[in-house]
Amino acid sequence: MTIRTANDVTGAVLAVMAQTPDPRLREIMDSLIRHLHGFVREVRLTEPEFREATALLNRMGQLTTDTHNEFVLMAGSLGVSALVCLQNNTDAETDTTSQNLLGPFWRMHSPRVENGGSLLRSPTPGDAMFVGIRVVDGQGRPVPGAEVDIWHCTPQGLYENQDETQADFNLRGKFTTDGDGRIAFSSVKPAGYPIPMDTVVGRMLAAQNRHPYRPAHIHALVFKDGYKTLITQIYADDDPRLETDVQFGVTETLIGRFQRHEGAHPDHPGDAGPWYSLDHTLVMTPGQAVLPRPPIK
Amino acid sequence: MTIRTANDVTGAVLAVMAQTPDPRLREIMDSLIRHLHGFVREVRLTEPEFREATALLNRMGQLTTDTHNEFVLMAGSLGVSALVCLQNNTDAETDTTSQNLLGPFWRMHSPRVENGGSLLRSPTPGDAMFVGIRVVDGQGRPVPGAEVDIWHCTPQGLYENQDETQADFNLRGKFTTDGDGRIAFSSVKPAGYPIPMDTVVGRMLAAQNRHPYRPAHIHALVFKDGYKTLITQIYADDDPRLETDVQFGVTETLIGRFQRHEGAHPDHPGDAGPWYSLDHTLVMTPGQAVLPRPPIK
Repeated sequence: MTIRTANDVTGAVLAVMAQTPDPRLREIMDSLIRHLHGFVREVRLTEPEFREATALLNRMGQLTTDTHNEFVLMAGSLGVSALVCLQNNTDAETDTTSQNLLGPFWRMHSPRVENGGSLLRSPTPGDAMFVGIRVVDGQGRPVPGAEVDIWHCTPQGLYENQDETQADFNLRGKFTTDGDGRIAFSSVKPAGYPIPMDTVVGRMLAAQNRHPYRPAHIHALVFKDGYKTLITQIYADDDPRLETDVQFGVTETLIGRFQRHEGAHPDHPGDAGPWYSLDHTLVMTPGQAVLPRPPIK
Repeated sequence: MTIRTANDVTGAVLAVMAQTPDPRLREIMDSLIRHLHGFVREVRLTEPEFREATALLNRMGQLTTDTHNEFVLMAGSLGVSALVCLQNNTDAETDTTSQNLLGPFWRMHSPRVENGGSLLRSPTPGDAMFVGIRVVDGQGRPVPGAEVDIWHCTPQGLYENQDETQADFNLRGKFTTDGDGRIAFSSVKPAGYPIPMDTVVGRMLAAQNRHPYRPAHIHALVFKDGYKTLITQIYADDDPRLETDVQFGVTETLIGRFQRHEGAHPDHPGDAGPWYSLDHTLVMTPGQAVLPRPPIK
């Protein structure tokens, strides 16, 4: 059709989208056009704003490297990653999920640790943390023999691959759940940390008066045949930014109840304390066990 | 607020957007979130589709160079550029506009040509074309003394800066309207041409069974103090792809009525013909005269 006025454009584009042979791509493109054009119309996007928008989108792709994914960071900062995670994983019975974002710091081939072992591979100052995690199914039955990959940052907010002072794979380890579905380890309590601010996302956060912090958390990736691979984070309930996570990643189910203990831990009489303990439950659902690929650029 | 289920995410994000101090940015972000989340919810975007989408967006930015703008090409291919142009330029009285897309091939400092002169700066095979353009205001009164920058491609679909066989600035020229608002020039009739297909846009077009062609057109940029700078294209009415422009750029107002004449033009008895003539009217509206910047990357 020939376009006469602005009112004709969306109909003309939708008519073209309707010719897409693949039904899923057709569905996606139809919805994308209606929402994208709806946005452009609703805000009456100006020509200078359109030029600025395309320049920012190009810049975002150009900021992406092997170690930084600007579009994933933006998707998190606009709540899209959280929405995609939740709408694909919510358990119908409980209306909740143990699933959460993978994040950019997962590494393959984390070293094996025995249950009860430590994640410290080089001296790492900080408050000691003793963690017990129980993996269960939707009926609360233990999931034994599951592989649980754990990783987190230091009390300074740095993962080992961001920090030359830490040994390779410090604060990372791979466990196997026992007959009761449990793993246990000791480490130091992680802190929240800011996402990179020298980015388009950083400019947006500054313009919105938003802080760039993620609340403190422990990552877990749980793998067992017959279950959907569980990618999750356990958030520290004493973090002051728990309700303002820049990535909208915190859900109620994922808040870990850290108990603070004053003084030295009985097994570590040399430490002044305080120390923390955490007992947390993760729920797996039946499904296909797939290991994540390293992040796509 | 702490998020419990997928239903909570959009409200939590909108509450953050509402704190944006700048009112225009606040309006844009609010609308963007509602439409972006609305799209993600409506199609129930899956986790693999989300990863693929962010990878494609990153790739688009990385394809953008000094001479190629992938996000602008995509915006055109989804009708967004046409929508932005039309909603910012439609004249209330006529419900139409002479404005159209600038495109990526405009160059500053096009050489001056006298009215009636030729755009050929090196031998350029093709059917001769004699063009008269009249520039008027909304009341049909001539706009004299306006600067009119003209550029177009060869019958092979190549602009001079894409084609080593053409002289610098071939098929480009800058004119000044006479007392009756007119300019005139001769050239060779341009052809339609495909947009670059080794791109993300190209993959999308292939998946949608869409041809990559723009219909044949002549670009014009008209500048005069007191008028909104007129950026436009005049489309050849005999192009078979007039109603399927891959960039959704053709509006009824912008279709040029080319007349075909068999045999030699009286002034060029050596040519076998045919030759073409075109008389076209462009309408300027009062406003601020600004020259476009070179395309933003």
